[in-house]
Amino acid sequence: MNIEQALDEIRWDDQGLVPAIAQDAESNEILMVAWMNREALRLTIERQRGVYYSRSRQKLWFKGEESGHVQELRELRIDCDADVVLLKVEQKGGIACHTGRRRCFFRVWRDGQWVVDEPVLKNPDEIYG
Amino acid sequence: MNIEQALDEIRWDDQGLVPAIAQDAESNEILMVAWMNREALRLTIERQRGVYYSRSRQKLWFKGEESGHVQELRELRIDCDADVVLLKVEQKGGIACHTGRRRCFFRVWRDGQWVVDEPVLKNPDEIYG
Repeated sequence: MNIEQALDEIRWDDQGLVPAIAQDAESNEILMVAWMNREALRLTIERQRGVYYSRSRQKLWFKGEESGHVQELRELRIDCDADVVLLKVEQKGGIACHTGRRRCFFRVWRDGQWVVDEPVLKNPDEIYG
Repeated sequence: MNIEQALDEIRWDDQGLVPAIAQDAESNEILMVAWMNREALRLTIERQRGVYYSRSRQKLWFKGEESGHVQELRELRIDCDADVVLLKVEQKGGIACHTGRRRCFFRVWRDGQWVVDEPVLKNPDEIYG
Protein backbone atom coordinates (compact mmCIF):
# COMPACT_ATOMS: atom_id res chain seq x y z
CA MET A 1 0.00 0.00 0.00
CA ASN A 2 1.36 3.43 -0.80
CA ILE A 3 0.74 6.52 1.29
CA GLU A 4 -1.91 7.91 -1.08
CA GLN A 5 -4.04 4.79 -0.63
CA ALA A 6 -3.66 5.08 3.14
CA LEU A 7 -4.73 8.74 2.97
CA ASP A 8 -7.74 7.70 0.84
CA GLU A 9 -9.00 5.72 3.85
CA ILE A 10 -9.45 8.90 5.90
CA ARG A 11 -12.96 10.32 5.92
CA TRP A 12 -12.17 14.00 5.33
CA ASP A 13 -15.04 16.34 6.19
CA ASP A 14 -16.72 18.63 3.65
CA GLN A 15 -13.86 21.08 4.10
CA GLY A 16 -11.30 18.32 3.58
CA LEU A 17 -10.27 18.28 7.24
CA VAL A 18 -10.18 15.98 10.28
CA PRO A 19 -9.45 16.79 13.94
CA ALA A 20 -5.99 15.71 15.08
CA ILE A 21 -5.18 15.13 18.75
CA ALA A 22 -1.62 15.46 20.01
CA GLN A 23 -0.91 13.35 23.08
CA ASP A 24 2.32 13.42 25.05
CA ALA A 25 4.10 10.11 24.41
CA GLU A 26 5.45 9.88 27.95
CA SER A 27 2.76 11.30 30.24
CA ASN A 28 -0.17 10.47 27.91
CA GLU A 29 -1.57 13.93 28.59
CA ILE A 30 -3.59 15.56 25.82
CA LEU A 31 -1.53 18.51 24.67
CA MET A 32 -3.73 20.05 21.97
CA VAL A 33 -6.23 19.48 19.21
CA ALA A 34 -5.76 20.96 15.75
CA TRP A 35 -6.90 20.09 12.23
CA MET A 36 -5.26 18.29 9.33
CA ASN A 37 -5.94 18.21 5.64
CA ARG A 38 -4.57 15.52 3.37
CA GLU A 39 -1.34 17.38 2.76
CA ALA A 40 -0.78 17.97 6.50
CA LEU A 41 -1.20 14.27 7.28
CA ARG A 42 1.09 13.28 4.41
CA LEU A 43 3.75 15.68 5.66
CA THR A 44 3.30 14.49 9.25
CA ILE A 45 4.06 10.94 8.09
CA GLU A 46 6.92 11.92 5.80
CA ARG A 47 8.65 14.25 8.25
CA GLN A 48 7.65 12.34 11.41
CA ARG A 49 6.61 15.65 12.98
CA GLY A 50 3.26 17.26 13.71
CA VAL A 51 2.07 19.27 10.70
CA TYR A 52 -1.45 20.74 10.82
CA TYR A 53 -3.77 22.92 8.78
CA SER A 54 -4.61 26.29 10.32
CA ARG A 55 -8.27 27.06 9.69
CA SER A 56 -7.84 30.70 10.70
CA ARG A 57 -4.80 31.31 8.48
CA GLN A 58 -6.03 28.82 5.83
CA LYS A 59 -2.61 27.31 5.30
CA LEU A 60 -0.35 24.52 6.48
CA TRP A 61 0.98 24.97 9.99
CA PHE A 62 4.38 23.43 10.63
CA LYS A 63 4.06 23.19 14.40
CA GLY A 64 7.15 24.63 16.07
CA GLU A 65 8.39 26.42 12.96
CA GLU A 66 8.48 29.76 14.78
CA SER A 67 8.63 28.63 18.40
CA GLY A 68 10.96 25.67 18.05
CA HIS A 69 8.31 23.65 19.90
CA VAL A 70 8.16 20.90 17.31
CA GLN A 71 6.35 17.63 17.94
CA GLU A 72 8.35 14.54 17.05
CA LEU A 73 6.02 11.74 16.06
CA ARG A 74 6.15 8.54 18.10
CA GLU A 75 2.85 6.90 17.08
CA LEU A 76 0.00 7.66 14.70
CA ARG A 77 -3.53 6.26 14.96
CA ILE A 78 -6.98 6.67 13.41
CA ASP A 79 -10.32 5.87 14.98
CA CYS A 80 -13.05 3.45 13.93
CA ASP A 81 -14.72 5.99 11.64
CA ALA A 82 -11.34 7.11 10.24
CA ASP A 83 -12.35 10.71 10.85
CA VAL A 84 -10.04 11.55 13.77
CA VAL A 85 -6.23 11.27 13.88
CA LEU A 86 -4.29 10.67 17.10
CA LEU A 87 -0.61 11.52 17.35
CA LYS A 88 1.63 10.49 20.20
CA VAL A 89 4.45 13.00 20.22
CA GLU A 90 7.55 14.11 21.99
CA GLN A 91 6.83 17.79 22.62
CA LYS A 92 10.06 19.74 22.27
CA GLY A 93 10.43 22.60 24.75
CA GLY A 94 7.65 21.11 26.89
CA ILE A 95 5.20 23.75 25.67
CA ALA A 96 2.41 22.87 23.25
CA CYS A 97 0.08 25.86 23.73
CA HIS A 98 0.47 29.28 22.12
CA THR A 99 -0.32 30.79 25.56
CA GLY A 100 3.04 29.46 26.80
CA ARG A 101 1.49 26.64 28.80
CA ARG A 102 2.44 23.00 28.66
CA ARG A 103 -0.86 22.13 27.03
CA CYS A 104 -3.98 23.79 25.68
CA PHE A 105 -6.37 22.08 28.12
CA PHE A 106 -5.53 24.38 31.03
CA ARG A 107 -9.12 25.12 32.09
CA VAL A 108 -10.94 22.61 34.28
CA TRP A 109 -14.58 22.56 35.36
CA ARG A 110 -14.61 23.19 39.12
CA ASP A 111 -17.35 24.51 41.42
CA GLY A 112 -19.57 25.48 38.54
CA GLN A 113 -17.03 27.36 36.44
CA TRP A 114 -13.97 27.02 34.19
CA VAL A 115 -10.81 27.45 36.28
CA VAL A 116 -7.25 27.84 34.94
CA ASP A 117 -5.00 25.29 36.65
CA GLU A 118 -1.86 25.24 34.48
CA PRO A 119 0.84 27.90 34.78
CA VAL A 120 2.31 29.92 31.93
CA LEU A 121 5.83 28.50 31.55
CA LYS A 122 7.09 31.07 29.08
CA ASN A 123 5.79 34.44 27.98
CA PRO A 124 4.27 34.12 24.49
CA ASP A 125 6.11 37.31 23.48
CA GLU A 126 9.36 35.48 24.13
CA ILE A 127 8.20 32.40 22.25
CA TYR A 128 7.07 34.20 19.13
CA GLY A 129 8.99 37.49 19.49
CA MET B 1 -21.47 31.82 37.56
CA ASN B 2 -24.35 29.67 36.47
CA ILE B 3 -24.03 26.82 34.02
CA GLU B 4 -25.54 28.79 31.13
CA GLN B 5 -22.82 31.43 31.42
CA ALA B 6 -20.19 28.69 31.46
CA LEU B 7 -21.73 27.18 28.33
CA ASP B 8 -21.71 30.62 26.68
CA GLU B 9 -17.91 30.54 26.89
CA ILE B 10 -17.72 27.59 24.51
CA ARG B 11 -17.06 28.48 20.87
CA TRP B 12 -19.64 26.28 19.19
CA ASP B 13 -19.05 25.79 15.45
CA ASP B 14 -21.54 26.86 12.78
CA GLN B 15 -23.51 23.68 13.44
CA GLY B 16 -23.52 24.36 17.17
CA LEU B 17 -21.04 21.57 17.93
CA VAL B 18 -17.57 20.99 19.37
CA PRO B 19 -15.42 17.84 19.35
CA ALA B 20 -15.33 16.00 22.68
CA ILE B 21 -12.49 13.64 23.59
CA ALA B 22 -13.06 10.87 26.11
CA GLN B 23 -9.88 9.83 27.93
CA ASP B 24 -9.63 6.95 30.34
CA ALA B 25 -9.14 8.42 33.83
CA GLU B 26 -6.82 5.62 34.92
CA SER B 27 -4.72 4.72 31.91
CA ASN B 28 -4.99 8.14 30.21
CA GLU B 29 -5.63 6.34 26.93
CA ILE B 30 -7.83 8.14 24.41
CA LEU B 31 -11.00 6.09 24.17
CA MET B 32 -13.03 7.95 21.54
CA VAL B 33 -13.91 11.29 20.02
CA ALA B 34 -17.52 12.36 19.53
CA TRP B 35 -19.39 15.67 19.27
CA MET B 36 -21.36 17.74 21.75
CA ASN B 37 -23.92 20.47 21.34
CA ARG B 38 -24.87 22.82 24.16
CA GLU B 39 -27.51 20.47 25.52
CA ALA B 40 -25.12 17.49 25.49
CA LEU B 41 -22.49 19.39 27.47
CA ARG B 42 -25.10 20.65 29.93
CA LEU B 43 -26.36 17.09 30.47
CA THR B 44 -22.80 15.76 30.78
CA ILE B 45 -22.22 18.21 33.64
CA GLU B 46 -25.59 17.65 35.29
CA ARG B 47 -25.51 13.85 35.12
CA GLN B 48 -21.71 13.49 35.48
CA ARG B 49 -21.76 11.07 32.55
CA GLY B 50 -20.73 11.32 28.92
CA VAL B 51 -23.60 12.62 26.79
CA TYR B 52 -22.89 13.43 23.14
CA TYR B 53 -24.67 14.59 20.01
CA SER B 54 -24.85 12.05 17.20
CA ARG B 55 -24.34 13.83 13.89
CA SER B 56 -25.53 10.80 11.91
CA ARG B 57 -28.71 10.34 13.94
CA GLN B 58 -29.07 14.09 14.62
CA LYS B 59 -30.03 13.62 18.24
CA LEU B 60 -28.57 13.39 21.71
CA TRP B 61 -26.60 10.24 22.38
CA PHE B 62 -26.62 9.05 25.97
CA LYS B 63 -23.45 6.96 25.78
CA GLY B 64 -24.07 3.51 27.24
CA GLU B 65 -27.86 3.79 27.15
CA GLU B 66 -28.14 0.61 25.08
CA SER B 67 -24.83 -1.08 25.83
CA GLY B 68 -24.50 -0.28 29.51
CA HIS B 69 -21.04 1.09 28.69
CA VAL B 70 -21.62 4.45 30.35
CA GLN B 71 -18.81 6.88 30.98
CA GLU B 72 -18.71 8.30 34.50
CA LEU B 73 -17.19 11.75 34.48
CA ARG B 74 -14.04 12.31 36.54
CA GLU B 75 -12.77 15.57 35.06
CA LEU B 76 -13.90 18.05 32.41
CA ARG B 77 -11.64 20.49 30.54
CA ILE B 78 -11.71 22.94 27.66
CA ASP B 79 -8.81 24.10 25.53
CA CYS B 80 -7.36 27.56 24.95
CA ASP B 81 -9.78 28.33 22.10
CA ALA B 82 -12.72 26.86 24.06
CA ASP B 83 -13.66 24.83 20.99
CA VAL B 84 -12.71 21.34 22.20
CA VAL B 85 -13.95 19.52 25.31
CA LEU B 86 -11.89 16.89 27.14
CA LEU B 87 -13.54 14.37 29.45
CA LYS B 88 -11.68 12.08 31.78
CA VAL B 89 -13.98 9.17 32.37
CA GLU B 90 -14.36 5.84 34.04
CA GLN B 91 -15.43 3.62 31.15
CA LYS B 92 -17.91 1.07 32.43
CA GLY B 93 -17.57 -2.38 30.86
CA GLY B 94 -14.10 -1.48 29.61
CA ILE B 95 -15.43 -1.04 26.07
CA ALA B 96 -15.79 2.41 24.51
CA CYS B 97 -16.02 1.48 20.81
CA HIS B 98 -19.11 0.25 18.99
CA THR B 99 -16.91 -2.40 17.36
CA GLY B 100 -16.57 -4.07 20.79
CA ARG B 101 -13.02 -2.87 21.31
CA ARG B 102 -11.66 -1.08 24.36
CA ARG B 103 -11.23 2.10 22.36
CA CYS B 104 -11.91 3.53 18.92
CA PHE B 105 -8.24 4.21 18.10
CA PHE B 106 -7.46 0.59 17.23
CA ARG B 107 -5.63 1.28 13.96
CA VAL B 108 -1.99 2.30 14.09
CA TRP B 109 0.30 3.45 11.26
CA ARG B 110 2.89 0.73 10.75
CA ASP B 111 5.08 -0.15 7.76
CA GLY B 112 3.20 2.23 5.49
CA GLN B 113 -0.34 1.14 6.32
CA TRP B 114 -3.08 1.24 8.96
CA VAL B 115 -2.89 -1.91 11.07
CA VAL B 116 -5.47 -3.08 13.64
CA ASP B 117 -3.74 -3.76 16.96
CA GLU B 118 -6.61 -3.93 19.47
CA PRO B 119 -8.74 -7.07 19.88
CA VAL B 120 -12.53 -7.21 19.82
CA LEU B 121 -13.45 -7.89 23.45
CA LYS B 122 -17.13 -8.48 22.87
CA ASN B 123 -19.19 -9.17 19.76
CA PRO B 124 -21.16 -6.01 18.86
CA ASP B 125 -24.24 -8.20 18.31
CA GLU B 126 -24.06 -9.14 21.98
CA ILE B 127 -23.55 -5.52 23.05
CA TYR B 128 -26.47 -4.10 21.11
CA GLY B 129 -28.53 -7.24 20.55
